Amino acid sequence: MKLYSYFRSSASFRVRIALNLKGLPYEYLPVHLVKHGGEQFSLEFLALNPQGLIPVLIDGDKVLTQSLAILEYLDETYPEPPLLPADALGRARVRSIALAISCEIHPINNIRVLRYLKRSFGIDDEGRKTWARHWSETGLAAVEAQLATLPATGAFCHGDTPTIADLCLVPQVFNSRTYDCDFSAMPTIVRIVDRCMELDAFRRAAWEAQPDAE
Amino acid sequence: MKLYSYFRSSASFRVRIALNLKGLPYEYLPVHLVKHGGEQFSLEFLALNPQGLIPVLIDGDKVLTQSLAILEYLDETYPEPPLLPADALGRARVRSIALAISCEIHPINNIRVLRYLKRSFGIDDEGRKTWARHWSETGLAAVEAQLATLPATGAFCHGDTPTIADLCLVPQVFNSRTYDCDFSAMPTIVRIVDRCMELDAFRRAAWEAQPDAE
Repeated sequence: MKLYSYFRSSASFRVRIALNLKGLPYEYLPVHLVKHGGEQFSLEFLALNPQGLIPVLIDGDKVLTQSLAILEYLDETYPEPPLLPADALGRARVRSIALAISCEIHPINNIRVLRYLKRSFGIDDEGRKTWARHWSETGLAAVEAQLATLPATGAFCHGDTPTIADLCLVPQVFNSRTYDCDFSAMPTIVRIVDRCMELDAFRRAAWEAQPDAE
Repeated sequence: MKLYSYFRSSASFRVRIALNLKGLPYEYLPVHLVKHGGEQFSLEFLALNPQGLIPVLIDGDKVLTQSLAILEYLDETYPEPPLLPADALGRARVRSIALAISCEIHPINNIRVLRYLKRSFGIDDEGRKTWARHWSETGLAAVEAQLATLPATGAFCHGDTPTIADLCLVPQVFNSRTYDCDFSAMPTIVRIVDRCMELDAFRRAAWEAQPDAE
């Protein structure tokens, strides 16, 4: 397999954890999201993924895009260990947490959105940081409320093994720390992220362990 | 079943189409996203869904949140007619299109984001409309490129029956029309949306057919 990735990209980070958990080796192909106006907008890359987004996973002759679709594909094609619970309600809960992060927080704080705020509206560094912190804190507070109140929460977001929810939570928390997000009212999230980072599969997927880390 | 919904909410619209396609009757419970500072932020509603977002689907004793998680739940629990292809690659492609809309376009143009732009950054009506049109047009152009180049595209986004991709595309196009989005370079999207709107399940899910339509 080949993974088009950028060390700090949350969406790439999710897929790297999944590949590690499932013991699938892959070739790392770095795509720099900032250099040269964004290598994801090169004609060569757009031919591969017209969305101009990473990650892209190549599995044989299959070209796979959008991190959550890739996670579902990996779980269907390489089922061990499973990243989703066996029951429909559990699966719905895990996907809801994953989506609460990957739809409601992550895209609003994406590089291209922050760039638009700067270029078109003239929002300065401090304003953009406040923006990113706002969506992180309100979004993660909602996730904390879900995790803290439901009995299905275990050592991880759902039960005692990692699921797609944890694969979205950890990269988001890495990101949110760079905006000085206040985690003092999120003890469940902090506990789960600490537990995840005890696992080699998460540590090897982290920013600093990537070949293109700066 | 009960569906907490708002007539113009894209995420609710997706679930309404799915319920109609699968022939599942439901009680419509309107949640007004604008009135009273947003009824989704009432203590009663937050107790149901701490994310403060619609839709919420109640199926017996199950409380389901996040529209894409609800669509997957409905497809697993009430499998006919299927909303995802049978093969892993097809499923990945359909989910990628659905996510390209529901992660990359929809959240950035959400009411709460537009409100933040107005209140915290003082962006006027014209600026917010340009913002929404920008993310709609660039996001849908990427979807058009995917749909136009792949042989799996049929009468609908994937093959000749509606999938989760169509359930995300149609509500987004409804939304994008309100920003005067330019669809002239998106003939595949326009063709597919027109085909969807020939179906009773889509028409009965549309804005104007809802009990809370204004």
